[in-house]
Amino acid sequence: MSAPRQISRLLYRRSLISGSRRSTPTPMFKSPSLSVRHGSHLPPRSNQFTQPTKEHLDALKAISSSTLSTLDGSATEEELRSFNDDWMNKYHGKGSIVVKPKTTEEVSEVMKYCYDNGIAVVPQGGNTGLVGGSNPVHDEIILNLSNLNQIRSFDEVSGVLVADGGVILETADHFLAEKGFIFPLDLGAKGSCHIGGNVSTNAGGLRLLRYGSLHGSVLGLEVVLPDGRIWNGLSKLRKDNTGFDIKQLFIGSEGTIGIITAISILCPRRPSAMNVAVFSLESYEAVQKVFAEAKGHLGEILSAFEFFDKQSYALVKKHQEENGGERKVFETEGDFYCLIETGGSNAEHDEAKLTGLLEHLMENEMVLDGVLAQDSTQFQSLWSLRELVPESAGKAGSVYKYDVSVPVGKMYGLVEKMRAKLREGGVLEGDGKSEGPIRAVAGYGHMGDGNLHINIVANKYTDEIEKIVEPYIYEIVAENEGSISAEHGLGVMKAPYIGYSKNETSIELMKQIKQLFDPKGLLNPYKYIV
Amino acid sequence: MSAPRQISRLLYRRSLISGSRRSTPTPMFKSPSLSVRHGSHLPPRSNQFTQPTKEHLDALKAISSSTLSTLDGSATEEELRSFNDDWMNKYHGKGSIVVKPKTTEEVSEVMKYCYDNGIAVVPQGGNTGLVGGSNPVHDEIILNLSNLNQIRSFDEVSGVLVADGGVILETADHFLAEKGFIFPLDLGAKGSCHIGGNVSTNAGGLRLLRYGSLHGSVLGLEVVLPDGRIWNGLSKLRKDNTGFDIKQLFIGSEGTIGIITAISILCPRRPSAMNVAVFSLESYEAVQKVFAEAKGHLGEILSAFEFFDKQSYALVKKHQEENGGERKVFETEGDFYCLIETGGSNAEHDEAKLTGLLEHLMENEMVLDGVLAQDSTQFQSLWSLRELVPESAGKAGSVYKYDVSVPVGKMYGLVEKMRAKLREGGVLEGDGKSEGPIRAVAGYGHMGDGNLHINIVANKYTDEIEKIVEPYIYEIVAENEGSISAEHGLGVMKAPYIGYSKNETSIELMKQIKQLFDPKGLLNPYKYIV
Repeated sequence: MSAPRQISRLLYRRSLISGSRRSTPTPMFKSPSLSVRHGSHLPPRSNQFTQPTKEHLDALKAISSSTLSTLDGSATEEELRSFNDDWMNKYHGKGSIVVKPKTTEEVSEVMKYCYDNGIAVVPQGGNTGLVGGSNPVHDEIILNLSNLNQIRSFDEVSGVLVADGGVILETADHFLAEKGFIFPLDLGAKGSCHIGGNVSTNAGGLRLLRYGSLHGSVLGLEVVLPDGRIWNGLSKLRKDNTGFDIKQLFIGSEGTIGIITAISILCPRRPSAMNVAVFSLESYEAVQKVFAEAKGHLGEILSAFEFFDKQSYALVKKHQEENGGERKVFETEGDFYCLIETGGSNAEHDEAKLTGLLEHLMENEMVLDGVLAQDSTQFQSLWSLRELVPESAGKAGSVYKYDVSVPVGKMYGLVEKMRAKLREGGVLEGDGKSEGPIRAVAGYGHMGDGNLHINIVANKYTDEIEKIVEPYIYEIVAENEGSISAEHGLGVMKAPYIGYSKNETSIELMKQIKQLFDPKGLLNPYKYIV
Repeated sequence: MSAPRQISRLLYRRSLISGSRRSTPTPMFKSPSLSVRHGSHLPPRSNQFTQPTKEHLDALKAISSSTLSTLDGSATEEELRSFNDDWMNKYHGKGSIVVKPKTTEEVSEVMKYCYDNGIAVVPQGGNTGLVGGSNPVHDEIILNLSNLNQIRSFDEVSGVLVADGGVILETADHFLAEKGFIFPLDLGAKGSCHIGGNVSTNAGGLRLLRYGSLHGSVLGLEVVLPDGRIWNGLSKLRKDNTGFDIKQLFIGSEGTIGIITAISILCPRRPSAMNVAVFSLESYEAVQKVFAEAKGHLGEILSAFEFFDKQSYALVKKHQEENGGERKVFETEGDFYCLIETGGSNAEHDEAKLTGLLEHLMENEMVLDGVLAQDSTQFQSLWSLRELVPESAGKAGSVYKYDVSVPVGKMYGLVEKMRAKLREGGVLEGDGKSEGPIRAVAGYGHMGDGNLHINIVANKYTDEIEKIVEPYIYEIVAENEGSISAEHGLGVMKAPYIGYSKNETSIELMKQIKQLFDPKGLLNPYKYIV
């Protein structure tokens, strides 16, 4: 086999891009006075819940000293804003009390009190969710877990980590890195999100392809139930077949049936060798072909396969330009890009496998251009091309974010249908980048998991746009037997649309489960299953 | 690094052993008249259930033509025995009707009829369980799924297999092998057990270390609920966060809240290179050290790490001798043995990693002797040393089988405590191999999962022995915060002992879940959560 023309350039060329891997999402457009009201389907306040008063506040303060409120002036409305608003500044609660318990027992006492008094509660982790699931809809008390932030134990033989729910994902991963292990989940918001929130939303993220779902890696949970009882299911065992696996119900329950105060999770060894390469390609078909080749050549060391379109890349480039970052990454740009990450235990073997793949791709002209990271700075830089997409979209306007899963072959067709629909509705010009009410429609996501993100960047949130997009997006997902929420969850945003992904029997069973755990409906109301 | 003395012999020596990998468990000691009555804790028949009559039989025959019964002479008691008795011949039901529906709709109709008439039902797959979970306790109708045995679809892009619950595990794996994929579960009973049964018992088996739990790999289920409703949760999506993950409740529910009629499961690519090596070692401490080294050297290609003690090996040797197999495997035998399997995508890389490990182990005298399989026959032969342990124990006597999980470091201590207890009780002589009422106490299992199997081989099942062993075994597991059932489940055998592994809140929640799904308590009664 003769060495192809471009390989040496590809393999040894230094990446020119700048920009680091942003792991802390920064809230955007937080204008104190002018937030666009939208989301006409938000449900009205329910009279079944007690309105929190100064008397309740005093009782809660007696339970947990770290309690803030506008009711007694211990906090201003402004100070409570970051607890009441969501990360996108799309959903705005009116909670007047924030409780930040320091122990599981305090969480339990708070819940007992609220249960006895019929007060609704929204559990809150890092508040980085994208469906309005972690901030109040009306005046729910905000039970924020950031003070529950201790690592409880780590077993270096088994790799089992036990930690409070309020530990920040990145903190947990840094702790594990020092021990030679890795948290089996990674996502853009890692610098802010809590591991308890990750579990309660069943976060997917960037390396699900390799490490699988939290339903497989979470071994145990400690949960405060709606009535305040503490459920200790904090097993450290990899295998335990003694009755219904109750913890599974809490994974992905979005804080509607219990508050996760601690998790026990199986952490794999950290790969000693890691590589990342990014390619430009001419079509979505080419991305699919490269995905198949990557699986074949890289086998067990393939740890991520991400893709993004030229509209996504344009957003990132613009964002990097505005922040003084250099731009030139590819000599030949394409309509699509894919990122391949490997993680293995032997650098030499991994490099051989990756070189084999690269040679094959170049020889067969399956990619237009490619860049391979040569060091850890470049590793982060290349990842940032993919990871900065949501942040860059946010900087460019008000973003309608959709997160769906459909069979891999049908993923990009949804983006094209969405653009056609928006053009038809007169809010989009051209191919997804325009000066109209919609500035860009970007598609990207986790190829390996069939998980597509569509970001519709608008000048502002309007009911007009929302009506064009929803429920159309859910209809085309349902046509493909997909999920209207692959990893973001339902929250308040998608609660009304669950019928597009779940049948009546499922929804009936879910309502019964909610009723069983939370008969008063106090935990995270107005959301999820309504 | 100089090549150690024994390496070349170890690497290139041909294995001398015979014996193939037995995947079909053969029932043993099926004496039609003399089965020892034991298990004094078996609950009495409940009067809340209707006793099946000829009239019920006629109605069921009208629903499913494949219905057998002693009530109308369409079957003899002898013919129903294999449905009524468990695999170990330890538990004996008295069911007079066996229904074998051919479609999900037939299952639904049968359940509707039984629900309306208050008739108890035991769902049955391959009936290979080890806790008396899949045969009747009294006169429950046996709903056997062996006629529901079609593969419904397979997607070669995603690796998602959809198949009826009654497909035999080995059949599914052979089907997948032809496509270059592997079923993410393997266990000794693969030639008989059903994939629906595997899911409903959350089977663990031999490669959980590599492919993880079914809670992670099962993507969807089709389930007939106790009242006959069909719940279609047969998603093919890897990610779907739209409400409570209901399917998780059925995984490991042992047929108590629904009958799994089809599964959708994510199947990985079949490794193109596989290796297996077996070592003799002088102590359990040495096994633990080799385990740590194997994880370090083999990383992502380690697919199984099993261990067994000399008592286990003696049982296998005796069984092989009696079947004319040759015996000499190790030049130096040890008190312990471990089996290491690798599976990867590049034979050359895998061999290099494995050679690195073997050289390290030999140089540092961490093992006494070792054999590496040179071809697929030897691969099967070496696996049989481990896989034949349960069958060999069964041939040697009546076996009390325990399946527990505790932290890896404490696993073998349980075997030693058990022997001491039996010696103290006067039923065991020597070190676990004697001529007394107990013939052998063997310990083996899945090191990688902290899962220990203790097989106590007795001349016959007696209440005396049972009283010495139980609940002592569960007490010492509970002391170590372990599970009294790592992978076998609760069934009728361990139902009374769940309190050793689960707290009151857990059991209360489980009872509520059972009540929610099966308010009449008709499905698989007397078992699991009682």
